[in-house]
Amino acid sequence: MQDTANPAEIKPEGSGFLPGLAIDSVIFGFHESQLKILILEYRNTGLFALPGGFIKKNEDINDAARRVLTERTGLHDIYLEQFYTFGDIARYDPEPLQKILEANGITPTNDHWLLRRFVTVGYYALVDFTKAVPNPDRLSDRCAWYDLGNLPPLMQDHQQIVQKALETLRANLDHKLVGLNLLAETFTMADLQSLYETILDQKLHRSAFQRKMLSLGILERIEKKYSGGAHKAPYLYRFAHEPTP
Amino acid sequence: MQDTANPAEIKPEGSGFLPGLAIDSVIFGFHESQLKILILEYRNTGLFALPGGFIKKNEDINDAARRVLTERTGLHDIYLEQFYTFGDIARYDPEPLQKILEANGITPTNDHWLLRRFVTVGYYALVDFTKAVPNPDRLSDRCAWYDLGNLPPLMQDHQQIVQKALETLRANLDHKLVGLNLLAETFTMADLQSLYETILDQKLHRSAFQRKMLSLGILERIEKKYSGGAHKAPYLYRFAHEPTP
Repeated sequence: MQDTANPAEIKPEGSGFLPGLAIDSVIFGFHESQLKILILEYRNTGLFALPGGFIKKNEDINDAARRVLTERTGLHDIYLEQFYTFGDIARYDPEPLQKILEANGITPTNDHWLLRRFVTVGYYALVDFTKAVPNPDRLSDRCAWYDLGNLPPLMQDHQQIVQKALETLRANLDHKLVGLNLLAETFTMADLQSLYETILDQKLHRSAFQRKMLSLGILERIEKKYSGGAHKAPYLYRFAHEPTP
Repeated sequence: MQDTANPAEIKPEGSGFLPGLAIDSVIFGFHESQLKILILEYRNTGLFALPGGFIKKNEDINDAARRVLTERTGLHDIYLEQFYTFGDIARYDPEPLQKILEANGITPTNDHWLLRRFVTVGYYALVDFTKAVPNPDRLSDRCAWYDLGNLPPLMQDHQQIVQKALETLRANLDHKLVGLNLLAETFTMADLQSLYETILDQKLHRSAFQRKMLSLGILERIEKKYSGGAHKAPYLYRFAHEPTP
């Protein structure tokens, strides 16, 4: 929800940005059987939020989302999908924004553009946890991975945005090849099952899961190279197709 | 994309509405094996558009979409789903809006709020064709059903919005019980198959389709009442569950 530009550039009139519209992104990573998301902490406020930003007047909204994502993770060309636009009046809450501005030495007037009602377009991204380098913006001093099951209290309706992103991820699990973007290039069937179990938050039967995954025709089994004692090592797989963002 | 208020209320400053944000709705109906949508024709302009509107400053965006839908169809409590927010710069095209304003006796200044860049939240609705009473708004003189395969040229990116709505409808066909909202209360298996074939734009095998539909456990077969010669009439079905919007 915050601008990624220098605070001094956040002028009262919000010039340069579309008025009343923001983007927020739920950036998923998977590590050690945990689904994680990136959370920003705003400097000297104790406020936690999803990484987000505003849309430049000459920028597509999807490009604005990609820009924020690259700024926060250092990654390019990652899986990013718009999933819902949040526009309830109930989400309007100028207090945390006032706090953020004040913590950055700005005493906003009552009609400061940041204190008006905002509608936000929600995006979710799937990134390879091992490759992303979380990077705070100029208004925040921390950007870090949090387990989905152990998030700090998030400002405004950001908890709701996370919940809706997770529901979308679950609904898309099979036909969007979610695993392709969350796992390393090669993985075992157990890795894949662990990812599915974590996203769905339920145990799956090993043989039924393996049968289903193999029947989809999207996995390629990698030939084992000979090595002493390797006969007990599990098969490694990779996805046979390119992602379909 | 147009306001449903009196043209005189469309003040240059757009007071009362959120700036730069609109909603557009693709309202699907099904009749005689054709998928249809509602299209508005703007008075004295030759311009065709999706029914849409703006969001009042004290209104949830989903409520704004429901309001427009009720105004256009006379129907309440119908299946409505947000599916995508369109925010490319390329969709910005003030010319048709200028034309619409002029056709209503308004000579807009260059900074008229309607001539600025708009982002629009797309919704699709599924309505019972036989119950909807299309109703033009104050800026248009016609609101009518058009076959999806035979639409007039639509203004701005509205054709793209229709296409994306159709893709979403196809992707949701099974798990959202699309048929429940597009068919009359009771229907034959042939009616249901015709709907699926029309939405998917492909022929389906009769017995495989019937098997699949019955296996979902969502259909209830209605007992035939005795009537002379009725032994050859097809079974009637209805949906056993409420819709899940």
